[in-house]
Formats: sequence, C-alpha cells, structure tokens
Amino acid sequence: MTAAVLSGRELAAAVRAATADEAAALTAAGTPPRLAVVVATADESSAWYVRSIARAAEKAGIVCDIVDLGPGATAEEIRVRLGELSADDTVHGIIMQTPLPAGVNAQETALAIAVAKDVDGANPVSLGRLAAGLPAFAPATAEAVVRILEHHEVPLTGRHVAVVGRSTVVGKPVAHLLLDRNATVTVCHSRTADLAAVTSAADVVVAAAGRAGLITAEHVAPGAVVIDVGTNPTPDGGLVGDVDAVTVADKAGALTPVPGGVGPVTTALLLQHTVRAAAR
Amino acid sequence: MTAAVLSGRELAAAVRAATADEAAALTAAGTPPRLAVVVATADESSAWYVRSIARAAEKAGIVCDIVDLGPGATAEEIRVRLGELSADDTVHGIIMQTPLPAGVNAQETALAIAVAKDVDGANPVSLGRLAAGLPAFAPATAEAVVRILEHHEVPLTGRHVAVVGRSTVVGKPVAHLLLDRNATVTVCHSRTADLAAVTSAADVVVAAAGRAGLITAEHVAPGAVVIDVGTNPTPDGGLVGDVDAVTVADKAGALTPVPGGVGPVTTALLLQHTVRAAAR
Repeated sequence: MTAAVLSGRELAAAVRAATADEAAALTAAGTPPRLAVVVATADESSAWYVRSIARAAEKAGIVCDIVDLGPGATAEEIRVRLGELSADDTVHGIIMQTPLPAGVNAQETALAIAVAKDVDGANPVSLGRLAAGLPAFAPATAEAVVRILEHHEVPLTGRHVAVVGRSTVVGKPVAHLLLDRNATVTVCHSRTADLAAVTSAADVVVAAAGRAGLITAEHVAPGAVVIDVGTNPTPDGGLVGDVDAVTVADKAGALTPVPGGVGPVTTALLLQHTVRAAAR
Repeated sequence: MTAAVLSGRELAAAVRAATADEAAALTAAGTPPRLAVVVATADESSAWYVRSIARAAEKAGIVCDIVDLGPGATAEEIRVRLGELSADDTVHGIIMQTPLPAGVNAQETALAIAVAKDVDGANPVSLGRLAAGLPAFAPATAEAVVRILEHHEVPLTGRHVAVVGRSTVVGKPVAHLLLDRNATVTVCHSRTADLAAVTSAADVVVAAAGRAGLITAEHVAPGAVVIDVGTNPTPDGGLVGDVDAVTVADKAGALTPVPGGVGPVTTALLLQHTVRAAAR
C-alpha cells in the first residue's frame, strides 16, 4: 500500500488566486493591502522564509514591508515597532518573525500586535479569542492543517486526532481548531509516555514537534491520515518533515508531502488574512 | 475494590486559612481585599452559589459585593458595569456569574473584565495568556482539578489524562494546565465516537461535561483516578456529579466526591486569587 499524497499546492493556488482578486479590488478602491514583517534575527532559514512571503505577497498584489530591526534589537524596540505598525492605518497585517533575539519572550512581545492585524495569530489574545469562539486570526500553520484536511475531505467529526507538539504556534491552536470541528483531540509531546501507542490509536496524526523523522510507521495506524507540519533543515540545504515519509507512506492512508504540503497553504493563508484585515 | 476518596475539603481549608492570613495582612496595611460578583439572572442554583461565595469571602476577611443587575440586564449594561468595576481601585477581583440573560455572549462580555482582576479566568484574554504561558488567573474550577491532583500526589508527567467536556470554563483551560504539567491530554466531548474506549485508555479522567451519571464503570480503566467536576442539581434539591459514583468506585483507584471534591477547592481558589490580585 502506498499512502495518497495530500498535496497543499492546489489549495494554496486557489487561496492565492482568490486573495489576488480581493487585493486587486481593494487596491482599485484605494486601500492597497499592506503586510509588515518584523525581523530581528540573522537566521538564514528565517531570511529565506521572509523573502518567500514577500515574493508571494508581491505576486498577489499585496505590498510587503520587511522591517529589519537587526539581531541586536531589544524586546522594548520590537514592542515599540509592533505598536507603531499597529497604529499605522496603511498597514493591515503584521507578522513578527521568529526566532527573536535571545532573552526576548515571544508571547509577551506579541501582545503589542493589534489583534485585528495579527494575521499569524501570534498574540496570546488571538489564541484566547480563538479558544473562546470569538473572531480572531489563527496562526496560519495551524489553520493550514485544518484547511488541508477539509480540502481533501477528511472527516473530522467524532474522529480521533493526535497532535504531536504543544507549541503556542501550532500544537495548541490546531487542537482548538480541531475541537471546533468536533474532533476528539489528544495533544502529545516530548514527555508523552509511549508516543507510538497514543498516535497509533488515532484516525489522524498531526506531526508538529519540530523533530526530523520522529513519526515512523510504528506511530501510525494502518490507513490513518498523517499531516506533516515539520520543516527541519537538512545539512545539504533541503527540508524534511517530522514524518519518516519512506516508512509511513507504506502504512498510512494519506500523507502530506514536505515540501508541498502544509507550507504553501500557510503562506497563502497569511496573505488571505492580510486582505481580510484590509477589507474590514 | 473501593476507590480512595480524593476529598477537596482539607485542601480547601488550607487554602482558605492561608488566604485569610493574607487578607488580614492586606487589611492591616490599608488595602482590604474586595471581590465583586456581577449577577444578571434569577436562576436559583446560581443565587445559592453566589451566597456561598459571599459567605466564604466574609469568613476569609474579604469584602464581597453582590452587584445584581437583574435578569433583564442587557449585554451593554453588563459590560459597562464590568468596566466600571475594572476601573475601581478599591475592587480587586471580579466574577461574572453565569448564566447570563438569553442572547448575551459570555465570552464577548467577559472581555470587559480587567485581566488583573479576572479571578475566575472568564476573559478570553486570560485563557490565551494561560495557554501561552503568561501570568493570568485560570478559571478556578479548572485550577481546582489540578490542585486536587497535586494535593493527593497523583503523578501527571507523561500520564494520559482524558478530559470530558470542551467548555471555555473547564475543559479547555484544564487541558492547558495539564499540558503545562507534562500530561498527555485528550479532550473528549458530546461528539466523541466511543467515549468509553477513549476514557478507559487514560490514567486520569476529568469529567466536566455537565451530564449527571455520564461516566460509568465502563468508561474507566481499573485503578484510574477520576475527578468529577459535575454539579448537576437533582429533583430533590441535591447535587450529583458527572460520574456514576456507585459503579465507578468499584473500579477506579481514586475518585473525588460530589459534593466535597472540586467544589470547595474552587471557592477557596476564587478567594486566593482575590487576595493575590489585591497584593499586586
């Protein structure tokens, strides 16, 4: 058996196309949508990611400002800049790129992003609103997981989903989004005893631990759906997920590829959130 | 086999005693701690609960104001009053009692409670801060679950906890508190397929569905620890939990009683939160 490939590319293309239409309409109406990405790191893979967002934004007709504060920026400098962008009526979406300089608390700092412009759901207030069922942008990666499942018509109501990873960026918000869709949700993590026993009892496994190859065939029930959120850099400059695709593909029913799965949908959703923020 | 009784009374008494000491010290220092309970319902069990909080507060040396807006209060009236209390320097803790009048969104309304005074963790912002690891008061009931487990030295790291119920008041925040303590957490609910299969795989079951007798022996692994959050009124004016204690006590390793389990700890924590808010 070989798992079906749950590509994110077609969904991402559809979201980007709809977003470009909305962006064009907003621009024609005198409100060119604008995204600001605040960077405070010299990290190379981060720089690569930011450039890919900027390129995608440009193609969609969204102005993208990269606000580089340098790797020496203090928490206060980052907060002040996020506050200024939050108050700037010409800016509709704000992304605070990670990693931040050592010692800067990402959660605390993200409180300075206006909720209405928090297109990557980084502000803890957005997470709380999401959990409480109030309007807010979800972190784009977490939303991408659910959108891919929906796009490929994977049923969620009453199904058991194991989320591996408890980060504020993916694990926790994806758990809330899945609960909203009536899934039974188990959140596993590095301290989970017998991870394979827990995940192999699930209909769907969401791998978001940030550890290359963590999820192997023994972690997956025959026929299960596996969503790979991992983006782990390889020594040769490539990218691998948290799932050992070679062994898992022989056992799972369906699997997202890396690259080409969650990643492109995430970027497309960041842009979609930005035009939605601009349309308000 | 008969399950050990995980009483909440001793823990509640200890928390109340420590709280009374702190309240006395604050009062002596010129800051008498003050709790405001906003009520907008004619519901009888709610009125009973509010009176019990007021009595407990008085005994602990905390001033308790019951702010009764009547069952006809509008969302706007409740919000305005919560805002006034949030701005009043003599008030340290604010509880928004439920139920609210029909049509009033509790989550939306609770946004008007200042986070620093949100002693029952009702504001979605408090929930988001909690999930993100930032200082905030947890809903007292959710915290009571974890405090009882800790008081009775039930290990949580790496253990599997099934939480039955996904409310913003208990299920979701207790999931975050348990994840913080390194438990593997499954959130189940009314749409969970084969609830008994899921809960009987867990080391600890937290029953917070609000349905009398939902959890029976078949839902519980032999020797498991069961925390009963339910407080369901009986026709004769009594109170029963979500757990069918008669059958579960023969199979579980330990079980909280109703009443006398989570309830008294919840009330004690509300008061402890209030003195902590006053001490800032």
